[in-house]
Amino acid sequence: MYYPEPISKLIDSFTKLPGIGPKTAVRLAFFVIEMAEDDVLEFAKALVSAKRELTHCSICGHITDQEVCSICQDGTRDESIICVVEDPKDVIAMEKMKEFTGRYHVLHGSISPMDGIGPDDINVPDLLHRLKDEKVEEIILATNPNIEGEATAMYISRLVRPSGIRTTRIAHGLPVGGDLEYADEVTLAKSLEGRRDV
Amino acid sequence: MYYPEPISKLIDSFTKLPGIGPKTAVRLAFFVIEMAEDDVLEFAKALVSAKRELTHCSICGHITDQEVCSICQDGTRDESIICVVEDPKDVIAMEKMKEFTGRYHVLHGSISPMDGIGPDDINVPDLLHRLKDEKVEEIILATNPNIEGEATAMYISRLVRPSGIRTTRIAHGLPVGGDLEYADEVTLAKSLEGRRDV
Repeated sequence: MYYPEPISKLIDSFTKLPGIGPKTAVRLAFFVIEMAEDDVLEFAKALVSAKRELTHCSICGHITDQEVCSICQDGTRDESIICVVEDPKDVIAMEKMKEFTGRYHVLHGSISPMDGIGPDDINVPDLLHRLKDEKVEEIILATNPNIEGEATAMYISRLVRPSGIRTTRIAHGLPVGGDLEYADEVTLAKSLEGRRDV
Repeated sequence: MYYPEPISKLIDSFTKLPGIGPKTAVRLAFFVIEMAEDDVLEFAKALVSAKRELTHCSICGHITDQEVCSICQDGTRDESIICVVEDPKDVIAMEKMKEFTGRYHVLHGSISPMDGIGPDDINVPDLLHRLKDEKVEEIILATNPNIEGEATAMYISRLVRPSGIRTTRIAHGLPVGGDLEYADEVTLAKSLEGRRDV
């Protein structure tokens, strides 16, 4: 009631975004009014096209604006290794590292009985199909290092075992640049357990 | 290069907003993809209409989607008092208080020689016109309690003085609920200077 309708609607829309409270929403809405009109139109267009044009890759489940994502289309990538991740953002993180040349499989979640998410609610069946059709030699389980991620990795490794395909889990341990003194006990125990000869 | 084009454009748009860094922009963009399409369309529409439909009230300079804002249109408000503020957000803050029944004048800035903003760059001339035309008896200077706000208040009070209209400045002092121990020296000095009989 204090704001003219066009701005109160914009404030409402901003408030729906995660981590943006009422005060930040007001600040952002007032900022938009002072922005160049071209920038605002571009922003509005970007919102609509991100929502409408993006879909999940029919092979790996990564987000893409085509039928098959650019990674799955790339013939130079190693087809024998599939890295399984929970989220499209994890694919981006792996790609930024520039070390992994295989392909991905995006689960879009992790098994979490507490939230009622079972194996059938995430993209596992498609992974099993890929294992039959493609010549996969190794599956790297790169789900998050938390309870749900571990449970999901465990579940997939059991499903894959009969096929004889090698399944690996990314290493847990101290983050590079971290401090042993401040590491939590579980991480420290994992880093001891995973020690290697030098 | 890591993101499909529709999402990288959306990330760019979010990054242009104040207080939103690259990581937050990515998080918001991925959130938009998972939002209901109706909500996204509404958001895009709200952006465009906030930019296109909002203008400044021809009388007081407050933001409005009409020629004259709802406060200036409201015949029940006291026409003899004008509260001068720097920003439309200050009008909202005053209105939320529900104590002030007069009208406003929005300067859209404050005098700041350091930033090259002089008296002619803010909405002062319109204020002087209003003083001639309307039956104003008091001007409350509610610019911000900082150097620029004080300079602006001082400047306006000098301009208004010859007309004989009463000019007042909002009080400086300890915020209610504040702690004397933690108050800065200037605020404490102001609160002592502005002391009143009880």
